[in-house]
Amino acid sequence: MKEKQNRRIVLAARPHGEPQDGDFRLETVDQPAPGEDQVLLRTIYLSLDPYMRGRMNAGPSYAPPVEVGQVMEGGTISAVVESKSPNFVPGDIVLGYTGWQEYAVAAANSLQKLDPALAPVSTALGVMGMPGLTAYTGLLNIGRPKPFETVVVAAASGAVGSVVGQIAKIKGCRAVGIAGGKQKCDFVVNELGFDACLDHHLASFPQNLKGACPQGVDVYFENVGGRVFNAVLPLMNPFGRVPVCGLIAQYNSTGLSPGIDRVPALMGAILVKRLTFQGFIVRDFAAQRGDFVRDMVQWLRAGRVKYREDVVEGLENAVTAFQGLLKGRNFGKLLVQLAPDPTRG
Amino acid sequence: MKEKQNRRIVLAARPHGEPQDGDFRLETVDQPAPGEDQVLLRTIYLSLDPYMRGRMNAGPSYAPPVEVGQVMEGGTISAVVESKSPNFVPGDIVLGYTGWQEYAVAAANSLQKLDPALAPVSTALGVMGMPGLTAYTGLLNIGRPKPFETVVVAAASGAVGSVVGQIAKIKGCRAVGIAGGKQKCDFVVNELGFDACLDHHLASFPQNLKGACPQGVDVYFENVGGRVFNAVLPLMNPFGRVPVCGLIAQYNSTGLSPGIDRVPALMGAILVKRLTFQGFIVRDFAAQRGDFVRDMVQWLRAGRVKYREDVVEGLENAVTAFQGLLKGRNFGKLLVQLAPDPTRG
Repeated sequence: MKEKQNRRIVLAARPHGEPQDGDFRLETVDQPAPGEDQVLLRTIYLSLDPYMRGRMNAGPSYAPPVEVGQVMEGGTISAVVESKSPNFVPGDIVLGYTGWQEYAVAAANSLQKLDPALAPVSTALGVMGMPGLTAYTGLLNIGRPKPFETVVVAAASGAVGSVVGQIAKIKGCRAVGIAGGKQKCDFVVNELGFDACLDHHLASFPQNLKGACPQGVDVYFENVGGRVFNAVLPLMNPFGRVPVCGLIAQYNSTGLSPGIDRVPALMGAILVKRLTFQGFIVRDFAAQRGDFVRDMVQWLRAGRVKYREDVVEGLENAVTAFQGLLKGRNFGKLLVQLAPDPTRG
Repeated sequence: MKEKQNRRIVLAARPHGEPQDGDFRLETVDQPAPGEDQVLLRTIYLSLDPYMRGRMNAGPSYAPPVEVGQVMEGGTISAVVESKSPNFVPGDIVLGYTGWQEYAVAAANSLQKLDPALAPVSTALGVMGMPGLTAYTGLLNIGRPKPFETVVVAAASGAVGSVVGQIAKIKGCRAVGIAGGKQKCDFVVNELGFDACLDHHLASFPQNLKGACPQGVDVYFENVGGRVFNAVLPLMNPFGRVPVCGLIAQYNSTGLSPGIDRVPALMGAILVKRLTFQGFIVRDFAAQRGDFVRDMVQWLRAGRVKYREDVVEGLENAVTAFQGLLKGRNFGKLLVQLAPDPTRG
């Protein structure tokens, strides 16, 4: 009865700091059966994203935490195996939020059917999906880049950062990326078309960043925090904007940081330079999805936005891949492939 | 020739931390003589404001520093003594920026003639002037208070804070003030009409503040920084707004604060609660002066905005008064009176 089983990864314990292997458990259980207006799905791609670290913590955030013993949450691309909904037939490819597992039952109205002719279906988890929409809405609504301004973004080869910089270029800005290592930086400049990309591993990183931003920084799209933020802040121009999208460098932090309190200096910079910091999550701008899809399809077809995927094979490798994501070990949008993609030749 | 002399206070040295008496020097010099299109002014009121501490420091800010040996800058209400401009005659009362001195020569086009029938002329330095415009523009443009929201402001009996809370009430909000001591808190509630006012000197201040904001905080008008900010941040509601207008609690800081670095926690709060922090100075909104004057005149006449002035007599007491301002020793808008006010009976 192997074909009636389901492998899934549940949260075994709340991580303290970096997630350890033992904080997760790979289980094999029976496949669920779909009820009325539900479908049974087989996962093709599971998206791994930094926000998932937050869901592993107890305590209030913008979304409830994953409970211990519960399947880890996550966006997925799946094939419909069995349908009890008039809206889906077996073989349909859908975007859902069915988590770290090989099979799932989902309400038909929670799924979005994908058209493989529009774009590769995996992009619904990346450049055409939540990360792309995050970049688009955060940059345009909060960053408000004007031609000839300088836009800086970290994790510049990643799912969000790569789109931020490419949209900045489309809007006529100077795009400066920050990434970990020469290989990623070369990709960001040579393939994605950023004006510059700095390796944050180098001791000379703050000086290099300053050199790459001779007119200062007008928009800093904040998705990492930590040392990178400390290097960018002194370069901010008056009336600069900082969309705060993520803080991956501090997601594994276990408490308050010893040292010096930089809050007075940060508040002083906000005041004197009249900076705007605004936090957001993608669903705050859900109403702009139509504009986003229209623009992004056009940009992809025109070759003005490029993307890179980092595909890991097998559910059993999801934990290691996620641990690596928090350390910047991925190179491009991180996906776990759980089954063959029937839309790829 | 005593009547031809001018007493003035110059910056003798750049303060390190709290300004000391020796950082200033009271000089007696000859009165200047007005040239073409200039007037000779006798100062009636000198405004003392927290921003002046910033002007005493070297280094970049939103305005150039006062040079050592230069007269301290400041807004003034003066009487025209001698005019070489067709636009002014002796006896006119004007708003200018002539600094800490008894007499000054000013370009006629740098002055604004005041109408004592509109409001007491001293209010041009307070509720009808820069502090009032700061409160009005920062609260309405950045705070964007909606009816039934909670607006918190510190230094609530002061020139800016008192206006912030009263406009919040006019806009249908719950206004919660923070001030130093029972006398000021009683004034803020009983005279200004705030819903509550908390004494930040009390050990129970954070708990008291929480109790006074049962629906959380939607707008925190930031004009002090430091401990007060740390108490407000955990109470901020999702999508809260923080106009950053001043940081008086840290103006005398001499360096980075030891202890724990609260920046990661602050950035985390901005992200998770989707807060907006925006720094501003009053001249960013200079175009709204017309709206402000129209509204404030109406509110003052209707008794919907009240104000309190703390008037210190004599230029020789300006330094002590300014030192006290940075410690919250004033009670109301702080003015130094250098000459009789001919418009007061």
